[in-house]
Amino acid sequence: MRLLFVNPNITPAITEIMAAEALRSAAPGTEIVPATARFGPLYIANRIEAAIAGHAVLEVLAERAAGFDAAIVAAFGDPGLHAAKELLDIPVVGVSEAAFHFAYMLGKRYSLVCLTERLRVWAVECAEEHGLSGRLAGSRALTAPIADITRAQEQVGGLLLAECQKAVAEDRAEVVILAGGPAAGLARKLQERVPVPLLDGVRSAVHMAEALVRLSPPPARAGSMARPAPKPTQGLSAALTRALEGEAKG
Amino acid sequence: MRLLFVNPNITPAITEIMAAEALRSAAPGTEIVPATARFGPLYIANRIEAAIAGHAVLEVLAERAAGFDAAIVAAFGDPGLHAAKELLDIPVVGVSEAAFHFAYMLGKRYSLVCLTERLRVWAVECAEEHGLSGRLAGSRALTAPIADITRAQEQVGGLLLAECQKAVAEDRAEVVILAGGPAAGLARKLQERVPVPLLDGVRSAVHMAEALVRLSPPPARAGSMARPAPKPTQGLSAALTRALEGEAKG
Amino acid sequence: MRLLFVNPNITPAITEIMAAEALRSAAPGTEIVPATARFGPLYIANRIEAAIAGHAVLEVLAERAAGFDAAIVAAFGDPGLHAAKELLDIPVVGVSEAAFHFAYMLGKRYSLVCLTERLRVWAVECAEEHGLSGRLAGSRALTAPIADITRAQEQVGGLLLAECQKAVAEDRAEVVILAGGPAAGLARKLQERVPVPLLDGVRSAVHMAEALVRLSPPPARAGSMARPAPKPTQGLSAALTRALEGEAKG
Amino acid sequence: MRLLFVNPNITPAITEIMAAEALRSAAPGTEIVPATARFGPLYIANRIEAAIAGHAVLEVLAERAAGFDAAIVAAFGDPGLHAAKELLDIPVVGVSEAAFHFAYMLGKRYSLVCLTERLRVWAVECAEEHGLSGRLAGSRALTAPIADITRAQEQVGGLLLAECQKAVAEDRAEVVILAGGPAAGLARKLQERVPVPLLDGVRSAVHMAEALVRLSPPPARAGSMARPAPKPTQGLSAALTRALEGEAKG
Amino acid sequence: MRLLFVNPNITPAITEIMAAEALRSAAPGTEIVPATARFGPLYIANRIEAAIAGHAVLEVLAERAAGFDAAIVAAFGDPGLHAAKELLDIPVVGVSEAAFHFAYMLGKRYSLVCLTERLRVWAVECAEEHGLSGRLAGSRALTAPIADITRAQEQVGGLLLAECQKAVAEDRAEVVILAGGPAAGLARKLQERVPVPLLDGVRSAVHMAEALVRLSPPPARAGSMARPAPKPTQGLSAALTRALEGEAKG
Amino acid sequence: MRLLFVNPNITPAITEIMAAEALRSAAPGTEIVPATARFGPLYIANRIEAAIAGHAVLEVLAERAAGFDAAIVAAFGDPGLHAAKELLDIPVVGVSEAAFHFAYMLGKRYSLVCLTERLRVWAVECAEEHGLSGRLAGSRALTAPIADITRAQEQVGGLLLAECQKAVAEDRAEVVILAGGPAAGLARKLQERVPVPLLDGVRSAVHMAEALVRLSPPPARAGSMARPAPKPTQGLSAALTRALEGEAKG
Repeated sequence: MRLLFVNPNITPAITEIMAAEALRSAAPGTEIVPATARFGPLYIANRIEAAIAGHAVLEVLAERAAGFDAAIVAAFGDPGLHAAKELLDIPVVGVSEAAFHFAYMLGKRYSLVCLTERLRVWAVECAEEHGLSGRLAGSRALTAPIADITRAQEQVGGLLLAECQKAVAEDRAEVVILAGGPAAGLARKLQERVPVPLLDGVRSAVHMAEALVRLSPPPARAGSMARPAPKPTQGLSAALTRALEGEAKG
Repeated sequence: MRLLFVNPNITPAITEIMAAEALRSAAPGTEIVPATARFGPLYIANRIEAAIAGHAVLEVLAERAAGFDAAIVAAFGDPGLHAAKELLDIPVVGVSEAAFHFAYMLGKRYSLVCLTERLRVWAVECAEEHGLSGRLAGSRALTAPIADITRAQEQVGGLLLAECQKAVAEDRAEVVILAGGPAAGLARKLQERVPVPLLDGVRSAVHMAEALVRLSPPPARAGSMARPAPKPTQGLSAALTRALEGEAKG
Repeated sequence: MRLLFVNPNITPAITEIMAAEALRSAAPGTEIVPATARFGPLYIANRIEAAIAGHAVLEVLAERAAGFDAAIVAAFGDPGLHAAKELLDIPVVGVSEAAFHFAYMLGKRYSLVCLTERLRVWAVECAEEHGLSGRLAGSRALTAPIADITRAQEQVGGLLLAECQKAVAEDRAEVVILAGGPAAGLARKLQERVPVPLLDGVRSAVHMAEALVRLSPPPARAGSMARPAPKPTQGLSAALTRALEGEAKG
Repeated sequence: MRLLFVNPNITPAITEIMAAEALRSAAPGTEIVPATARFGPLYIANRIEAAIAGHAVLEVLAERAAGFDAAIVAAFGDPGLHAAKELLDIPVVGVSEAAFHFAYMLGKRYSLVCLTERLRVWAVECAEEHGLSGRLAGSRALTAPIADITRAQEQVGGLLLAECQKAVAEDRAEVVILAGGPAAGLARKLQERVPVPLLDGVRSAVHMAEALVRLSPPPARAGSMARPAPKPTQGLSAALTRALEGEAKG
Repeated sequence: MRLLFVNPNITPAITEIMAAEALRSAAPGTEIVPATARFGPLYIANRIEAAIAGHAVLEVLAERAAGFDAAIVAAFGDPGLHAAKELLDIPVVGVSEAAFHFAYMLGKRYSLVCLTERLRVWAVECAEEHGLSGRLAGSRALTAPIADITRAQEQVGGLLLAECQKAVAEDRAEVVILAGGPAAGLARKLQERVPVPLLDGVRSAVHMAEALVRLSPPPARAGSMARPAPKPTQGLSAALTRALEGEAKG
Repeated sequence: MRLLFVNPNITPAITEIMAAEALRSAAPGTEIVPATARFGPLYIANRIEAAIAGHAVLEVLAERAAGFDAAIVAAFGDPGLHAAKELLDIPVVGVSEAAFHFAYMLGKRYSLVCLTERLRVWAVECAEEHGLSGRLAGSRALTAPIADITRAQEQVGGLLLAECQKAVAEDRAEVVILAGGPAAGLARKLQERVPVPLLDGVRSAVHMAEALVRLSPPPARAGSMARPAPKPTQGLSAALTRALEGEAKG
């Protein structure tokens, strides 16, 4: 199966980090095709950047999604995710959403460990938006600024591990989610020093996308997830204009 | 005081309808300056369009907000509202948000009456996002398509009135909110035939913006509403680029 | 416009402190007329006193509200507020209610800082009763008794400031509400040392009452906010007897 | 044991109806002493009347509670109940509260059947205030006015039965509570025609008060249920003045 | 009246400790008949043991409940309680459930103090299942293992007292529940050193069962608490087979 | 990978129906090994039967789970599921749980369509227990008894389809879950006549189990999902005795 893997920020180096973990996670026969947002911020960690990224994600999907079996929105906070589900006929999965669902199945309480405080706020709001914050045991963030976000794993891996361990010891978390695209793949390395399942959004999303493709739900023909009727637009990219003004879903 | 009144869709005729109601509502000494989104759909009624509008609102605000005392985001569903609050140093009010707050003060249960079913879904999600859906008595929408959205008041005014009356009789609503930008001003006309307060988002937002300007809260210097640190971007409008890469808030 | 400003406790010195802040806050053209409860406790800080004050507020309103455009119930905890809304045809606003609504618009989480522990409990219950406790980040109270409640600002201003700062640093509050009538006006002075909006109930209520008067909702003719049918009573003040046994609303 | 049975409204005929059911329900050895409010409305069915009754209940209790083992507040909606719990050292039970708790133990969903629509609204708010509305399956009220509230059982018993049956058939209620003081004792007669437990507030409160007396909890010496410190008052009855200005709890 | 008192674990020594407290609590004329599960663990402190105990409780009840006025399920966590309510025509009360309901009536916030951490988790889930976790102020557990669970009171009584006091001082609990069958009766001894009501599940259940017997609700003939239609089974005890394949309820 | 597929009821014919759908759903390389409970009812549709089945599931798992990569509990309502997760070191998935999670990802509101009314009640409680009832749009059940539960698909397939369609039209469900083991596989056939995704619990569980095996979370070594310490038991099957008294997890 073919999965379109969309990085909602503009930084190819982060796309690479995340796509590498997606590849490591993919089942045999799953093809991962990375894509990077055309406009927006270097990385996404607040509501302003998330609002811009929501548009950028739709643009990437409108242009690229044809021929894929599912798409992944790969920024913790899932910018534009529900809009993307409405836009496309294939399943679309967010990295936060996927991690939250696995967390619900693996324990009764989960905590979020985030690269930055602003990301923490957004990630918690994302859990609320998904209706999956009821089992949140806590949320933690690094306080020191990260010099080079693309090298976060080397620079702050130890600090992240300490927060994961505190999530278990102090928040009584039974599952921990390591949030933040630049941390993709780090959970694999830290897992053995954390006594509960430590989830990675990217890996979670790959496994969930594979499951959804096998489930093969039909596109909704009723309700708010059905394709909206065509409508005139202005100032959008050619692909998004086509998608909204009357082209078939991807 | 000066209020920037932003229509998140691209249709000047809807801007005019809404700005007219804003003017009728404004206190003496309040100046209303309308603005229309540069890109996006003809009007906004689903999550796809809301996601695009969130970006469009930020762009308008980045370009125009300097010198204003407050800004109003004038599409029911409040696209980009929380991002806008983060972006600017002046109060920003959404038409939904303002109506919800007045509804809470005027009764124990409120209902939404919406121009379309897709708008209804979005409006309910907006109430949830604001943490103000706990008193929602119901939500109703017209089922027939609206031939010309800019003339909705003439075409479907009677149908909307009937839904407002049913909201009181069947949902036991104690306040009714008439949702949808093209319906701005209609509540004034229908009020006498509805036995509970009938709220208009635009009028609510003008009164609330005036109140917030008088309250004159300082810009947040801590927490998730504080101005984010500057960060590189790509592909954004000149004004939004300046706002995000380091200019002072509006 | 004319606002009736009701102090639900019996202490004129507290009425003066609060009315002074109301006057400082009022827009040009807004007249503030203070009134003090005829019976009850020196100040209100628990459910017993609140229950008595609920009756006292209705009595003051029944006697005085005629000719006013709106009324304000000025004790944190809003004693008798919903009863008052049912009794009168003009808008009635509580100081807690108004502060909660502004808090919702200015940040995602708010904290309460209260003069006493008993007031803290009541204020939190008040937020719950208004359906506005979902975003409560925390609630704090001074632990030391206050020698002279009418001079609370001089005596414990510094302690209150410290709690406000802790609300931001420890509770992650994005808005802080300074609760307690005797503290009216203090937020103005402490604001510059608190990095998020610091709200005063009295000031919030004045701005909200002005907004509601401009919104000019009609009295409810259906639902639980409509004037109840006349009914015999016994042992009430002359004005309240008239109001309940068949006089027109104020 | 001795139970003080307080009717919060001023109508002795309703006190009699309720006290008769209390007596029928009481265990051998339980003495029921009825008391009627000194001021307030003929009966209580809205927030205005409830606010007045809250004060009236405290006055009766301050005057009469000495020497009793527990007190019952006998108006559906429990006016002044939490204030009364704070005021007294003996257990105080509300008729609504008691019925709600038994409903929770006897089924997963309960419905309220109320004498009037205004009472229905208040009763639902009472369930919310007790934190016991989560299992509310529905709430129903008679729509026709009741000519003589003291003869409600004869006049509208059939209508109430029909609503109880609809609560089971349409709301899927597994327990039904018959709300309204004047209906006290009616549940006994209607039970055989209702296929689920049909609860009476007065009877529920008597059984619960007996249980609480046997449980014999000590008066709280910490928290918001502990006796407040003495405080000056003005304009209250002699007994309530003594209770608040420094006398020992009842 | 006769109460069947079921210990869901297999340890007669714990049955004795609990039954002794039940006897101390019982009103004159109440007969307590203890019974012990035939299969399962030594004591119950996690979901595995609770699942087994749910079956064991049903087996005991099917065999023994005939002729009793009510039954008590005496393990904190209430294993099999709702199934038991469905199975029998007499009231069935759980020790947790009874304590939660009294806690709601005696204060606004309650805390749980548990013998072990696993029990704490289960007890909190039990409160959630009953819809009574909304007022949970906190939950605490001893961290040290208990050498001999049947002598827990002597061994860890002091530690439990310290946790009860911390529940008041740190969690602001207004009621404390001492959870865990082997602690039955200890609350009586510790009460005077805890400044708020300290509840014992066994004692609470006895008082509540007595109240329910006096309330004498009829068996449900509709809804999910009504006796299910007979159905073939396999491998169950003779009594449970009879109960499920068509015998009348107990 | 190898999945142990446990039917919690005793009826091999239902095991066959469900296992057939599991096989149809399994990815290449996934082996499905069915198992049937040794004791309990013919099928499970109320809390009594669920309580018994919880024990029966643990017994099957204790005996059979060694050597499997994951286990599936295949009765709608997930009897014993959380106990099973605690018992085993491999992932355990419930058919309800899996369907709920996919429903959350595919739409904003889902409805349950159930074979019987009692099953409907249990299924809703199951959604609540999983913390996944917040998006429940409705729940529906057939009212007529089913003559032969093992031939439910032929007998009541049309009635189930009608309820699915009403769930969309009347409840505004955006996803429908067809609940009840004997209906396994029916969703495949009815999907084309339902305009939103129609989910089958068995199929959902197979896809989710495959995803969890690929995610390969380590067994919890902390928190309530960690293996409990060994403890004496009595009267349990040899395998369950070994599992609880000290054998390694499966």
